[in-house]
Amino acid sequence: MLYLIGLGLADEKDISVRGLEIVKRASRVYLEAYTAILLVEKHVLESFYGREVILADREMVESNSEAILKSAEKEDVAFLVVGDPCSATTHTDLLLRARHATPAIPTRVLPNTSIMTAIGCTGLQLYNFGQTVSMVFFTDNWKPTSIYDRIKENVAHGFHTLVLLDIKVKEASEENMARGRPWIFEPPRFMSSALCAEQLLYVEGERKEGICGPDNLAVAVARVGSEEEKIVAGTLEELSTVDLGKPLHSLVLIGKKGHEMEMEYVRDFAIDKAKFEVIWKRDYGKS
Amino acid sequence: MLYLIGLGLADEKDISVRGLEIVKRASRVYLEAYTAILLVEKHVLESFYGREVILADREMVESNSEAILKSAEKEDVAFLVVGDPCSATTHTDLLLRARHATPAIPTRVLPNTSIMTAIGCTGLQLYNFGQTVSMVFFTDNWKPTSIYDRIKENVAHGFHTLVLLDIKVKEASEENMARGRPWIFEPPRFMSSALCAEQLLYVEGERKEGICGPDNLAVAVARVGSEEEKIVAGTLEELSTVDLGKPLHSLVLIGKKGHEMEMEYVRDFAIDKAKFEVIWKRDYGKS
Repeated sequence: MLYLIGLGLADEKDISVRGLEIVKRASRVYLEAYTAILLVEKHVLESFYGREVILADREMVESNSEAILKSAEKEDVAFLVVGDPCSATTHTDLLLRARHATPAIPTRVLPNTSIMTAIGCTGLQLYNFGQTVSMVFFTDNWKPTSIYDRIKENVAHGFHTLVLLDIKVKEASEENMARGRPWIFEPPRFMSSALCAEQLLYVEGERKEGICGPDNLAVAVARVGSEEEKIVAGTLEELSTVDLGKPLHSLVLIGKKGHEMEMEYVRDFAIDKAKFEVIWKRDYGKS
Repeated sequence: MLYLIGLGLADEKDISVRGLEIVKRASRVYLEAYTAILLVEKHVLESFYGREVILADREMVESNSEAILKSAEKEDVAFLVVGDPCSATTHTDLLLRARHATPAIPTRVLPNTSIMTAIGCTGLQLYNFGQTVSMVFFTDNWKPTSIYDRIKENVAHGFHTLVLLDIKVKEASEENMARGRPWIFEPPRFMSSALCAEQLLYVEGERKEGICGPDNLAVAVARVGSEEEKIVAGTLEELSTVDLGKPLHSLVLIGKKGHEMEMEYVRDFAIDKAKFEVIWKRDYGKS
């Protein structure tokens, strides 16, 4: 059987009790390490599990999955995913392939928390979130503003918007690609909440429709679910200057339909509580 | 410290490794049992944890939380929540009270999966879900159609809609309330996906705007995250006749913006695959 096992968000102890049992007895264990990262290194996981873990990069999963699926119809193979296994297309694709293999490979998914639910730690109600969006690293030549239209759809209904921040793991630089050396990888890059806020302000400057401007309220989070979790609320202007430290960061644009109780909870995280409350009372909380 | 610990969705082994460590060492352990239920009884949990667990009903949590918070500034108190702790307001309220208590009580949330992410097991991409809605049990006198407007907002953008189904645990019947006997509780009721589909069809019949009619595609799920997980796809008409067995059920109205890959994955769960594909090609997949 192929098990897709969610590891949760922080460290080796966020795996479920059942997940750990399976990891210990499986023939092979893979760790998917390109859609997100755990806050601990692979060797810490191996030490805790008492066994070796094979790193699976995007190429292996998307173009070479036979290695992962080999013998899974008669052995247990565990495929570990940071966060939750069903949050990204790359994983459902693997399940589809297992399902349609000959012979068919039985599969089971052990869900775990994802940033998409753990973001409730901000006090913002999950029911009030619209679609989730992704912010990519801008380059000199490429500053896509399509994210603005997605956020705008949420804003039209007063919903919160969870912004997932770009991570680049094992990517070749543009220069090395151009020089025909795609195997030279850049060091991993994880977008900070401050850079995300900056890029949102840039896009607002281009589009000017009052969607994500300097006075819009937002919440930045880092290392959610861990002991070093950090939550900071404020205007996008303020958040573009705050350093939340080590990865992983996310950001939520607060929706205008926000409730009084959400505000009460979030305000405690504000850089400037008085200012936060003034802006809220002025622009937010319209049901 | 007050720990809010997510138990995940199925049974005693869905708790995280860290969560189990805390449960074993805590002075007191409460189990919140009114926003959702685990698929195993309390005694199974107690047997697995090797300790007693106190059932916390809505009254205790919302009106009598001092008992839960007592001494939590100097002892470890664990508050267990089925699914994820940050998915419902009743829990963030408890955290607020701990935070503002005198002396202040330190808190930590251990997130876990919630139906809101585990619903990815259907193959529908979480990024494409709009706001989550709740379907209540209709009565002869009360058939609220406000849910229609919420779904309509999602439909306008082609998003999927996760419908959470009503559960009634420890509720007094209308009759007993009227007779001044609010302590006589009805047996627990968990809405089935079939009843939800039926009620959605009823509401469509009233409002007639083509939001959730007989030919709209949907996915019904039961016991997500467990070995007995069941997923069935089809039209709302079809789903109103299918019995998915024991609780807990949920339903997703598929959005018109659905991707080809989502359809490929979901179609395997369809009651009538050919019909599902015909309707999809005709009405869905419009980016």
